[in-house]
Amino acid sequence: MLERFKVPHEDQVRVPHESLRDTVAAIFEKMGTTHEDAAEGADVLVTTDLRGVETHGVSNMLRAYVQGYNQGSLNPRPDWKIVRESPATATIDANKGLAVILGPKAMRMAIEKARNVGVGVVTMFNAGHSGAIGHHAMLAAQEDMVGMTCTAGGTLVAPTFGAEGRLGTNPIAIAAPARNEPFLLFDAATSAIAGNKLGLARRVGAPLLPGWIAEMDGTPIMEETPVRERGEYMQLPLGGTREQGSHKGYGFSLMSEVLASALSGTPSSMVDQGGASHHYFAAYNIAAFTDLDTFKDNMDKMLRTLRDTKPAPGHERVIYPGLSEYEEEQERRANGIPLHKEVIEWFGDITSELSLPALRTM
Amino acid sequence: MLERFKVPHEDQVRVPHESLRDTVAAIFEKMGTTHEDAAEGADVLVTTDLRGVETHGVSNMLRAYVQGYNQGSLNPRPDWKIVRESPATATIDANKGLAVILGPKAMRMAIEKARNVGVGVVTMFNAGHSGAIGHHAMLAAQEDMVGMTCTAGGTLVAPTFGAEGRLGTNPIAIAAPARNEPFLLFDAATSAIAGNKLGLARRVGAPLLPGWIAEMDGTPIMEETPVRERGEYMQLPLGGTREQGSHKGYGFSLMSEVLASALSGTPSSMVDQGGASHHYFAAYNIAAFTDLDTFKDNMDKMLRTLRDTKPAPGHERVIYPGLSEYEEEQERRANGIPLHKEVIEWFGDITSELSLPALRTM
Repeated sequence: MLERFKVPHEDQVRVPHESLRDTVAAIFEKMGTTHEDAAEGADVLVTTDLRGVETHGVSNMLRAYVQGYNQGSLNPRPDWKIVRESPATATIDANKGLAVILGPKAMRMAIEKARNVGVGVVTMFNAGHSGAIGHHAMLAAQEDMVGMTCTAGGTLVAPTFGAEGRLGTNPIAIAAPARNEPFLLFDAATSAIAGNKLGLARRVGAPLLPGWIAEMDGTPIMEETPVRERGEYMQLPLGGTREQGSHKGYGFSLMSEVLASALSGTPSSMVDQGGASHHYFAAYNIAAFTDLDTFKDNMDKMLRTLRDTKPAPGHERVIYPGLSEYEEEQERRANGIPLHKEVIEWFGDITSELSLPALRTM
Repeated sequence: MLERFKVPHEDQVRVPHESLRDTVAAIFEKMGTTHEDAAEGADVLVTTDLRGVETHGVSNMLRAYVQGYNQGSLNPRPDWKIVRESPATATIDANKGLAVILGPKAMRMAIEKARNVGVGVVTMFNAGHSGAIGHHAMLAAQEDMVGMTCTAGGTLVAPTFGAEGRLGTNPIAIAAPARNEPFLLFDAATSAIAGNKLGLARRVGAPLLPGWIAEMDGTPIMEETPVRERGEYMQLPLGGTREQGSHKGYGFSLMSEVLASALSGTPSSMVDQGGASHHYFAAYNIAAFTDLDTFKDNMDKMLRTLRDTKPAPGHERVIYPGLSEYEEEQERRANGIPLHKEVIEWFGDITSELSLPALRTM
């Protein structure tokens, strides 16, 4: 994550991950989820914070989920069901369940199918937010599979040359195991910047870089600019401008729309404006393609080669997606997760409102 | 395609696609391929030119293939075989066959598997170039499936912050059918610019834009710059710089490495430097996920909404990936394919060298 998004040192309060897990699970349960679902949701969010992906951990998202449960847009006890199934596929109606919680179930279903026939693909419609989708992809990687996930939902991103928001930030993630190297874990919005990074920038007061957002008439803003309020900007696809490749970011975003929305039998948000998210979970059983040992050795060699790449002037090292997340996790497991003091305040308010024990900090 | 890459009007010679098809097939056959394989190869390349994707049609690639066959790096009669198979998957050793020709066979295998179990994924190692990989994805779309393809090979692209080439331009493509709208067809290099576009820029004398290439020490060149010879630059991932999202282009490139190289049981080019390409072909049977009619209606609504989006100042319209390719194909079927006069000269030389009838122009 760029330095500008990190919680400034003087605003940090460190929280042990076990304590954060307990409090988050208790909040989910107060929202009406089952005990097991609460634990699953807490695991997804806190693991995400452990990986340093604080845009998608408890800070930005949990309060939105609480709001969703309170307003009824999220269903804490969804009667989710498989509406179509084949040996390698399933399509799930999430019945407004939060995909943070249903995502791991869908991925485990994909993993089971991949174990049987080589590949498993599960799509899910009519769902809530899925958190950091890389988390779900990692569930497959931990089972000696390649995991791939994507999500579609929202209309905050303008297509290339467009003056109206049509696309969500529609992230795509892939995870793959190695032998000795930390796993490859790539998880990125197909917009120039993740929507949650804008929220984070607002909180830490960081300006936005050229090519990240557009004026409301669609003109890309090509100089550094202060964060704006929602409704005063549109987001741009990865690339920013056509010359810099925004048509590719736009295309990757449509890949999410096809795999997550269309393949689950539902219209894109740009058509139905319904506010639901749609998700895609794929697991590839590595052993169905090649020897698992060969795969892991090849991954190790590739990831090691990337790490050993000579850095360009002004840079300390070359990393690969998943490496700094792994390192961050070791550090945060030992020293706690740094939350912004404003987030700690929110936890104070919500635990008191819900009559829960206060969040234990370090 | 950006204007700067189009063949200047005064340098164009129009060629009927049937005539181009005949000549290209005849050249393949002279290289030693079977009659059927020659026709398949010609179909892939000429359809690509019909779609206006001239970077990957006959102009840039055919001479490289001829050179490969002549030097023995490409095998015109590959003894390709399936080395591992499951209901949803297959892994193919291409035995140095050109993936332009073997790609459609692999995708048809994936389609058959998808018909049986919902999804089919075929990976291929030890192969030559696969042409415009969107073509293979379209084969699935034409069978009422979603097609996805990607390719890994080469080391011309530096990872983010890196001073050494590690990645190929590693393209990713997806194709999906609609009802009345032209099909969605997205096919893009995960580098800031496709390798073949640099060849094209050299031929048409177009300068390169900021963020497309780096100095040999890895520093991104952030102003417009004349095209350079190979060995005097490295390519950058989509995004160009870290601030503009090059870590995402880099990650998408690694997605190709995982799906095409690692899942086919072979090391990345950055490790083995062997010069072969590796490919991934996936077909999703839409009917296994949802009603085909629902899918096509949803695609129509989405693509129509994108087309109807109000354009930003200075732009005529918003398009979606595949739309201008469709329009180009109608025009080129009627009026011929515009080739650069220098390409026509090459056809003159090669047909005479191989004792073939001259290419018929309009």
